[in-house]
Amino acid sequence: MEISIKHILKEGSTIRVNGSLWLQSGDEHFFGPGPVELLERIAATGSIRMAAKEMNMSYKKAWALVNTLNEQTRSPVVIAQIGGKKGGGSTITNEAMEMIKYHKLLRQRFVDFLEKETQELKI
Amino acid sequence: MEISIKHILKEGSTIRVNGSLWLQSGDEHFFGPGPVELLERIAATGSIRMAAKEMNMSYKKAWALVNTLNEQTRSPVVIAQIGGKKGGGSTITNEAMEMIKYHKLLRQRFVDFLEKETQELKI
Repeated sequence: MEISIKHILKEGSTIRVNGSLWLQSGDEHFFGPGPVELLERIAATGSIRMAAKEMNMSYKKAWALVNTLNEQTRSPVVIAQIGGKKGGGSTITNEAMEMIKYHKLLRQRFVDFLEKETQELKI
Repeated sequence: MEISIKHILKEGSTIRVNGSLWLQSGDEHFFGPGPVELLERIAATGSIRMAAKEMNMSYKKAWALVNTLNEQTRSPVVIAQIGGKKGGGSTITNEAMEMIKYHKLLRQRFVDFLEKETQELKI
């Protein structure tokens, strides 16, 4: 059964259904738009520090996100090389790339859901 | 196209897809689980003040939620009577009850979406 609230809302209303989505384990949110953006920026910059800086995220927070993600996966999603002459270089693994791809598709399904619900608000 | 990340996640993982959902107008979130609970408690107690107290919400915040909601609807969702011997009594309107009912069904569709995505994580 679907019910409409169109007749209740003001005419010409720009109301829409919106939301957020993430993966969680127990109470811990470990994957969503933030971690995805961090992984993408690590891949682009080769550096957790630079990726974090670009996002106005603390280096500590970035490491916490990476560690939490690595804890949920069979093999690490980020390989960090610490130190060395030019400082460490970090790379993301194929698993990370698959997680990003999965998230993109999941996100699209969610956007479709939101779009459908928003359309139905107007019927 | 769907892709699976099951082979990436740790075995026996309790990972699930979760999220939140609301109605918004412009950037303003005006309807979701919080306002619904407030409306239900106003209906039960006949008082915005008591409803807010039960939710550990400030009276000011409760009024802000009610006003924001009233601004989005053709007619008010809460009728507040201020003052009088016993203090004011507030009631919710039929429109508010329809909004609550709509939200319940919307929420169920969202829960179904999350459940389906969580099941597919495990395939």
